[in-house]
Amino acid sequence: RGTGSGRGRRGLAMAKSKFEYVRDFEADDTCLPDCWIVVRLDGRNFHRFSEQHEFKKPNDDRALQLMTRCAQTVMQELEDIALAYGQSDEYSFVFKKKTRWFKRRASKFMTHVVSQFASSYVFYWKDYFKDQQLLYPPGFDGRIVLYPNNQNLKDYLSWRQADCHINNLYNTVFWMLVQRSGLTPVEAQDRLRGTLAGDKNEILFSEFSINYNNEPLMYRKGTVLIWQKVNEIITKKIKLPEEAEEKEVEVIRTKTKVVPLHCDIIGDQFWEEYPEILAEDS
Amino acid sequence: RGTGSGRGRRGLAMAKSKFEYVRDFEADDTCLPDCWIVVRLDGRNFHRFSEQHEFKKPNDDRALQLMTRCAQTVMQELEDIALAYGQSDEYSFVFKKKTRWFKRRASKFMTHVVSQFASSYVFYWKDYFKDQQLLYPPGFDGRIVLYPNNQNLKDYLSWRQADCHINNLYNTVFWMLVQRSGLTPVEAQDRLRGTLAGDKNEILFSEFSINYNNEPLMYRKGTVLIWQKVNEIITKKIKLPEEAEEKEVEVIRTKTKVVPLHCDIIGDQFWEEYPEILAEDS
Amino acid sequence: RGTGSGRGRRGLAMAKSKFEYVRDFEADDTCLPDCWIVVRLDGRNFHRFSEQHEFKKPNDDRALQLMTRCAQTVMQELEDIALAYGQSDEYSFVFKKKTRWFKRRASKFMTHVVSQFASSYVFYWKDYFKDQQLLYPPGFDGRIVLYPNNQNLKDYLSWRQADCHINNLYNTVFWMLVQRSGLTPVEAQDRLRGTLAGDKNEILFSEFSINYNNEPLMYRKGTVLIWQKVNEIITKKIKLPEEAEEKEVEVIRTKTKVVPLHCDIIGDQFWEEYPEILAEDS
Amino acid sequence: RGTGSGRGRRGLAMAKSKFEYVRDFEADDTCLPDCWIVVRLDGRNFHRFSEQHEFKKPNDDRALQLMTRCAQTVMQELEDIALAYGQSDEYSFVFKKKTRWFKRRASKFMTHVVSQFASSYVFYWKDYFKDQQLLYPPGFDGRIVLYPNNQNLKDYLSWRQADCHINNLYNTVFWMLVQRSGLTPVEAQDRLRGTLAGDKNEILFSEFSINYNNEPLMYRKGTVLIWQKVNEIITKKIKLPEEAEEKEVEVIRTKTKVVPLHCDIIGDQFWEEYPEILAEDS
Repeated sequence: RGTGSGRGRRGLAMAKSKFEYVRDFEADDTCLPDCWIVVRLDGRNFHRFSEQHEFKKPNDDRALQLMTRCAQTVMQELEDIALAYGQSDEYSFVFKKKTRWFKRRASKFMTHVVSQFASSYVFYWKDYFKDQQLLYPPGFDGRIVLYPNNQNLKDYLSWRQADCHINNLYNTVFWMLVQRSGLTPVEAQDRLRGTLAGDKNEILFSEFSINYNNEPLMYRKGTVLIWQKVNEIITKKIKLPEEAEEKEVEVIRTKTKVVPLHCDIIGDQFWEEYPEILAEDS
Repeated sequence: RGTGSGRGRRGLAMAKSKFEYVRDFEADDTCLPDCWIVVRLDGRNFHRFSEQHEFKKPNDDRALQLMTRCAQTVMQELEDIALAYGQSDEYSFVFKKKTRWFKRRASKFMTHVVSQFASSYVFYWKDYFKDQQLLYPPGFDGRIVLYPNNQNLKDYLSWRQADCHINNLYNTVFWMLVQRSGLTPVEAQDRLRGTLAGDKNEILFSEFSINYNNEPLMYRKGTVLIWQKVNEIITKKIKLPEEAEEKEVEVIRTKTKVVPLHCDIIGDQFWEEYPEILAEDS
Repeated sequence: RGTGSGRGRRGLAMAKSKFEYVRDFEADDTCLPDCWIVVRLDGRNFHRFSEQHEFKKPNDDRALQLMTRCAQTVMQELEDIALAYGQSDEYSFVFKKKTRWFKRRASKFMTHVVSQFASSYVFYWKDYFKDQQLLYPPGFDGRIVLYPNNQNLKDYLSWRQADCHINNLYNTVFWMLVQRSGLTPVEAQDRLRGTLAGDKNEILFSEFSINYNNEPLMYRKGTVLIWQKVNEIITKKIKLPEEAEEKEVEVIRTKTKVVPLHCDIIGDQFWEEYPEILAEDS
Repeated sequence: RGTGSGRGRRGLAMAKSKFEYVRDFEADDTCLPDCWIVVRLDGRNFHRFSEQHEFKKPNDDRALQLMTRCAQTVMQELEDIALAYGQSDEYSFVFKKKTRWFKRRASKFMTHVVSQFASSYVFYWKDYFKDQQLLYPPGFDGRIVLYPNNQNLKDYLSWRQADCHINNLYNTVFWMLVQRSGLTPVEAQDRLRGTLAGDKNEILFSEFSINYNNEPLMYRKGTVLIWQKVNEIITKKIKLPEEAEEKEVEVIRTKTKVVPLHCDIIGDQFWEEYPEILAEDS
């Protein structure tokens, strides 16, 4: 007859329940309440990845815009992300102080962010890289950090933007020396050893007639993603009671969208302009 | 003149160092040594995802094989994964007890696993789903659990395989009732409420002439991925000193590959057959 | 000859170094920076302890004062405790937000607090309990909690003081019913079941002519310990150059002392009066 | 009338419940199951403490025996301690792998151990130090470490015993040089710099006619505390039915007691002699 299970009538469920004690080994990783939760991700081996995919140096617009597209997807798909900041192959996501998403479990925040970002990277690749084929699926690593107060959070973001600034200035000069002056990478490195910001600005200006401050903001400042109310005019078909036919009307709909900015976030101006980001009840 | 930086000569680096204290807020999440490290991932909202992508019910071979393809990529790209086990939309990865990869930091393990899996899922999608378009980038969540000894680890894997068994038996009957007997999902659910494994086997046999034990092993047991030495015959061009021309010879090369199995891992047989998986020095 | 060590010349140190890997199993338990660190301790089985040592009910001044003496010792012996609050058999110690004592390691904070408190309890026992012998060494348990901002911390302390209030009101009525009306403990419990604060006040007033608000502040509010500058007049022997003999003079010395208060800490007044406790740089 | 509470009838409980959210800030610190839990405590500033209380150098029997008395109390008062090991001013307590005491919360284990130890230290002081007054209440710090398997645990204990050995050998020679040869502490330190175990043994033998191996085991090996069944002969008064008078009889009662040993625990012999300590079901 049909059963034939060696384990008998209750076998499966009993077997399972016997093993279920292993669930108790999972540790609680709830984030301390009332702290900003920041998840930062970085591309894994993106030095190699960028060479294999022929990224333009020092900045590849396609790559930067793809990163931002992925970050937007993360903000839209996940809950309670107040702001994101990205530069190079990294992106930081700031969850609201009061978020209760997934009971504030750290592993949920980290893994949802990086998996959504990684799948989006492949999914949207062709929108930015066109005929340049993606050779293999890239990896990303992530970490989570808590910040108890607004000053800590602003300092964190300032740290990342200062890092962007330093790296981009260095890379801009370095690649000018390589691409335009014909130095080898080692020679360019030697040339720049020990130089300060002012020295690098000077090289750019005197040797390449480049005023660094005129370089694109996206390169110099990175990308800030925030939620903004935007008005959209959409066309709607409505049927008024007194009329026989449906007719099209234009209506204004207010939507909340993720908007990219390339501005300074180290000074006070940004935070004064968008006070709702740090607002207590946000 | 060229500099024009409001922050002066040392400005950037000083600004950055002023903010760098925020690094100290990152908590240490090193895993206890000498424990098995298990990372399990699950598809996010895969119920909805499977409907939107018209997965065959109760099991879609394309989806299962894609999951396994991604898991293989994870094992190949990351370090020290001794074994993986997958079923439905979940996969568990077992890192070696003694691994020192990324200093055993939990966040590194979790985020590398899920991001590599997620990007692979989109990357390899078309190899399995052909003309069925991927509509949006999927998300995955992950968690990490430590198991101090081999019995704990085997019980963890047994728990997942027993879960596979229970769910697959249920789903097999459920979808037979819906697809072949024309019951609505609610009716099928009512019919199965309170039934034991034997009852479900009986329904399958008497109403649909299905012997559950003859159902494909992949559905009933899930998929185990292990490393296996395999011999490959490859063709190599060699030039012998006494000969003028290169010539092709066939040589056997031993490689270590990730191999999928669909077998019982609850009993002892599997562990006796592959003792190296749990070996102390592994 | 004299050595005779089976382990040979380098034996001891080599043996030790072979085992030292076990140090890596100790987990990092650093507290998140910029948070208030609160350690609360409770007497272990103090219900039994108070009966065996014939504590006066509902409040024993000797026991409360001994608790406070121990808490003062903890504040004096340990670093960076900004405030302590005690009631019944519990005491909470608030470490400064910015403390770097023992690198903010949680285990250090907890164990130093409870061990210093416990040894002090026995050491100072006879100063308060005189002829009442201490029958056995008491135990205490401790826990640590982080509070990211001042409001959280004030709410924590309010929570403990509200708890003091509720318990003391209950206990005051309960013991009146038992000691003065001759009810059994069970009868007293039944009588009080479901009563609100107002009901209990009413019983006290109408049956025992007690206005609860005139009960001692120490019972109703618990004890707050803070650091206060106090001027002490001390006698010093000095020898002036032009004089032959030493002579005694009175000088004022400013010292910082731990001072007990029995006041409300739920409202704003306390915090306005002692703003230095929550001051950013404290 | 009697109420007079500014907070009204429900005031107290409502106030309290408003603040109770602060409980959610307490982090879960459950220890991983199936691991040995070790709590080690150390005297705080015991160098100074031992000088102020005139401890005999290099070993003071009173101090060592008092430490052991406290450790015995800890084992008797707390649950599930399988073994303790002490030397100098430190003691390690090993809780059973399977203990569920206080749901395996790390803070409970640490604080109960150190507070019970600290209060016992003061309580039992006079039994060992007689007329030597205790000048102030001492402090202790504690830490907790998990060990996943028996080998780890044995290696931990071996590490502590090897440490005992190394320190005691050093201290024995050092104090001989100071006490008997009249060297200053700095001179003794210089003399011993760079010497190996064999050199120290040689100095002891040739200069002081001391065979180190004949030094007391308690100094060289430290103290192991284990539970042992012991038979006690007690005198009981019984009244037999056929007899008019009560009479005294001697009966044997089996009790489980904490017994101190001073033996090697690095080799296998100890563990073979007491297999129940590491037994799976212990």
